[in-house]
Amino acid sequence: MPRYKLTVEYDGRPFVGWQRQDNGPTVQGVLERAIKAFSGETVTIGGAGRTDSGVHALGQVAHVDLERDWPAETVMNALNFHCQPDPVAILAAERMHEGFDSRFSAIRRHYRYRIVNRLPPLTHEKGLAWHVKKDRLDAAAMNEAAKVLVGHHDFTTFRHTRCQAKSPVKTLERFVVWREGEVILAECSSRSFLHNQVRSMVGTLKLVGEGRWDVEDVRAALAARDRKACGPVAPADGLYLTQVDYRPAEDDLAALAAYGALRGGAQAGSPSEDPEDDASG
Amino acid sequence: MPRYKLTVEYDGRPFVGWQRQDNGPTVQGVLERAIKAFSGETVTIGGAGRTDSGVHALGQVAHVDLERDWPAETVMNALNFHCQPDPVAILAAERMHEGFDSRFSAIRRHYRYRIVNRLPPLTHEKGLAWHVKKDRLDAAAMNEAAKVLVGHHDFTTFRHTRCQAKSPVKTLERFVVWREGEVILAECSSRSFLHNQVRSMVGTLKLVGEGRWDVEDVRAALAARDRKACGPVAPADGLYLTQVDYRPAEDDLAALAAYGALRGGAQAGSPSEDPEDDASG
Repeated sequence: MPRYKLTVEYDGRPFVGWQRQDNGPTVQGVLERAIKAFSGETVTIGGAGRTDSGVHALGQVAHVDLERDWPAETVMNALNFHCQPDPVAILAAERMHEGFDSRFSAIRRHYRYRIVNRLPPLTHEKGLAWHVKKDRLDAAAMNEAAKVLVGHHDFTTFRHTRCQAKSPVKTLERFVVWREGEVILAECSSRSFLHNQVRSMVGTLKLVGEGRWDVEDVRAALAARDRKACGPVAPADGLYLTQVDYRPAEDDLAALAAYGALRGGAQAGSPSEDPEDDASG
Repeated sequence: MPRYKLTVEYDGRPFVGWQRQDNGPTVQGVLERAIKAFSGETVTIGGAGRTDSGVHALGQVAHVDLERDWPAETVMNALNFHCQPDPVAILAAERMHEGFDSRFSAIRRHYRYRIVNRLPPLTHEKGLAWHVKKDRLDAAAMNEAAKVLVGHHDFTTFRHTRCQAKSPVKTLERFVVWREGEVILAECSSRSFLHNQVRSMVGTLKLVGEGRWDVEDVRAALAARDRKACGPVAPADGLYLTQVDYRPAEDDLAALAAYGALRGGAQAGSPSEDPEDDASG
């Protein structure tokens, strides 16, 4: 069956998260209903990052197999039509080879965190940023502290207690913080993130921005490998999954072949390698 | 009575406009209720620009007289508290002299118009930008056409048929258009604007961006001094009142003295000069 890669933008405010569940509307649910309305097929859609309730995406990636070989543009336009009026938009659709998996083929996830640092309440950005009233956060100090977290570390301190990843060890490739007027932006990139990792790191850096913690406190919190050493977790409002990078097609197809050999034949499905988890930053 | 200048930000989506009226919630109404809740006073608040239904502000300016001489910061914090949960925020409050009038002392209004030019529907920006799906608008051509409108002109073509300004002649001081990724921004400045002027001009420039009109068509439309020569009016969604500039205090006080002399005594109130109108761009 033809496989499609979908690049998806959404406003997380009305959703209980990416992943389909019983307690409220989800992005996955909106997309699966849109596909049902478009082609009549009942599918399960996988995403590159299982964003939590209230978390936004500017470049989430999902994939879906459809029975007919539709032009990618038709799939994009039809799903955009059927997603309305929910705040979910397909930014791009691409026809992919059978080895592509939005989650397992991903080699890098990029998240952005947005803080509005001012006394007055938010208007247009309510639910789209973390409103920090207190003082003027020191973005340069936050950026210095962010450098401590870059690299290959045991991130147990910055991991939700219910995180299901097999290992707390991740390689944080990039973590930068800067100020633009009253807005503070933080961006980080990693092959994958632990559950609540980005929000836990940003909440901890806020303590640095306030002058309550310094770089050494962050270093000590990381070294503690203890959830109790983490600062307060930043709210979902400010978090955006901005981009997902993928390995080359030949690596996907090699993984698929290896998986097929392991299972005694060529089959479509997840490659056999241990999948890196990603549970919404 | 102490006079306060308030710089106000609001999300125009839930409002039928700035000005208090019977058919729905207004920003003026929210502010007047907040003042009632704060100091118990029933006041009428004047704004620098009477923004229409759905139009936003990042720097609207209003003034209000209060009986007690509150610290400006107290006024700001209290009104921000009492405006909640409406999406209205006081960005600044200042104690002003009695000659200051948010509308009549203004010497320049600045508006920004935001177009998102892409095929997929809007998510986070629904109601916060004009969604133009068609093709790729040529922002450089729009900017060339905008130059035609800069200067001292009869703007009858770009004026709402119900506009109540005494004269259609205005001096457009600045009008620039540029692209930032999928977003097209237009900014214009003038002492004051006719009713729907900015939206009429932007809607006309969109025809240029699409290649359906050229610079000469815009020149001809302006010269026609005929509402029927105008392009389609751009929606309220993309329009933001960003800033209002004011004359020096001595000019306010001179105007006030002249007004007092005219009325046979020193009185607070509007200066006697013919007020420039401003009806929401």
